[in-house]
Amino acid sequence: MFWDRFPLIKEEIIEFEDYLQSSLVSRQPLIQEAICDLAKSGGKRVRPALLMITAKFGEYKKKEVWSLAAALEVLHMATLIHDDIIDDANLRRGSQTVQAKYGKDVAVFAGDYLFTLTFDILAGEATQQQLKQVSKVIRQICEGEIQQHQDRYNLDVTYKGYFKRIKSKTALLFEGSCALGAGSAGLSKAQIRDLAHYGRYIGMAFQLVDDLFDFSKSSSSIGKPEGNDFTQGVYTLPILYTLYESSSGKKLAELLDDPVDNSQEIKEIITNNSALDYTMKIAKDYINKAKDRIKGLEGNPYHQILTDLADIVVNRDY
Amino acid sequence: MFWDRFPLIKEEIIEFEDYLQSSLVSRQPLIQEAICDLAKSGGKRVRPALLMITAKFGEYKKKEVWSLAAALEVLHMATLIHDDIIDDANLRRGSQTVQAKYGKDVAVFAGDYLFTLTFDILAGEATQQQLKQVSKVIRQICEGEIQQHQDRYNLDVTYKGYFKRIKSKTALLFEGSCALGAGSAGLSKAQIRDLAHYGRYIGMAFQLVDDLFDFSKSSSSIGKPEGNDFTQGVYTLPILYTLYESSSGKKLAELLDDPVDNSQEIKEIITNNSALDYTMKIAKDYINKAKDRIKGLEGNPYHQILTDLADIVVNRDY
Repeated sequence: MFWDRFPLIKEEIIEFEDYLQSSLVSRQPLIQEAICDLAKSGGKRVRPALLMITAKFGEYKKKEVWSLAAALEVLHMATLIHDDIIDDANLRRGSQTVQAKYGKDVAVFAGDYLFTLTFDILAGEATQQQLKQVSKVIRQICEGEIQQHQDRYNLDVTYKGYFKRIKSKTALLFEGSCALGAGSAGLSKAQIRDLAHYGRYIGMAFQLVDDLFDFSKSSSSIGKPEGNDFTQGVYTLPILYTLYESSSGKKLAELLDDPVDNSQEIKEIITNNSALDYTMKIAKDYINKAKDRIKGLEGNPYHQILTDLADIVVNRDY
Repeated sequence: MFWDRFPLIKEEIIEFEDYLQSSLVSRQPLIQEAICDLAKSGGKRVRPALLMITAKFGEYKKKEVWSLAAALEVLHMATLIHDDIIDDANLRRGSQTVQAKYGKDVAVFAGDYLFTLTFDILAGEATQQQLKQVSKVIRQICEGEIQQHQDRYNLDVTYKGYFKRIKSKTALLFEGSCALGAGSAGLSKAQIRDLAHYGRYIGMAFQLVDDLFDFSKSSSSIGKPEGNDFTQGVYTLPILYTLYESSSGKKLAELLDDPVDNSQEIKEIITNNSALDYTMKIAKDYINKAKDRIKGLEGNPYHQILTDLADIVVNRDY
């Protein structure tokens, strides 16, 4: 498994998996089936892991940490289900999505169920402040999703708009995981801020690399259809960079008029330009910022894990 | 307005409306627009009113009560938005639905946003127990919605299945409003239970009357398309009663094979049988049970409001 390389936390993440599965219950058989499918299709549990690791820098309150970690992972699952409705996606992590298997109607309410479960888990352990933190993150995710939807097929999306969008879509939940973990451990305000920024920056890099994979990877290796984003009018950094900085920008704009038919040609333009290198460079800049931000924690064994995780974000090929 | 007839609480409900509107904020312009549309299209704010009225039977903690009332109304709005996605509905309270105006994608995340806002409002004032109460209600609503979806076009739906479904769909939120109001006022366990049952029973009656209107009312008077339910395979009590108790049951089953084309004939069968009378009788039985349940509170001026409200549920023509 992914966490084999981190013996210091591997066991706890394996134990946590059982706890997470046991939180995912419903008396309605179809909901139970849908959320079990999703839970079992895996995922690396990066958000819970970040929460646990950042909580290890101070007084480790296992019960509180696990409850927060489960809540955030369940929330992440809820957003995946609703995301797949928007994207009309059939595959997620190589498995059929809830909406493909059970229909959009079930997907809407299965997602709602998980959203509610998030708060149900939190209601048991979280403080008022932690609840507010989580609900703020979710509201921003929703706002980001709708912004992304509104920006579709808009060739005038700015870099700023793109970075704001991936912040909402991905980075804020990474940031929230770290902030909640560090907060639970009773760290100083400055340390919490540093770890929260670490989370945000690796989240930005994570999404940049994902957006890059949309062009460089075959669909089978990432378990979802290739070129999904631009064929649906969602323009990521490789597209924006080529549009604005390359001599092929005008040609690309024309091809994007009919993205499905021109999909192969669009990909060739993007890969033949320096757009993917540029995107990777920006991702690596974020990783460097992330590592810089937690320099003050050097010496602690969990600092090494965070540094290694940051490197993996940009060196992964999955 | 609806509350003109109840001077004892009318002013507070008017004041509360501003508070509710001010809770409905988003920095994302499209979400803001969508939720404003919905909020302004009105509704009688029955759930907040029930919460306030039941809270008047003891020590009235206005700040807590308003926060709970706003949370439940926002939750109700969230379920309406997601409901309309499932039902493919174009009209709600005579106005275009969020999904009809902005598309399903926006509707999914605007609903999620409101779900989250519910918990955000609660995080400020509610106790852990109140949070758990609300999240339990939402989970049951989600389970009920999925059950309803699964039962579509199933001619073997039982009465029991139907009553369970309308309990989840409508009655539990009425029950929750009353339970939270009574709980906040520090009433005895028995009183809280009585008021909660009052809420559940009028909620059951409310949904029964709604289901009856599906056959007896023109679409313009209830602000939504007529005969919506059975054309989508959702069989309510008038249908079930005719199927199981009437000599036209077999004929009806055949007609339901093609409910859209046979819509007029189906309605005639239902209205020419005693199905609507039967449905109204069951609704009135619930209203009597509701009033019985709160007999112990007689003498209190708010008891009169609850009794009058119960009567209105079955005597309304909107």
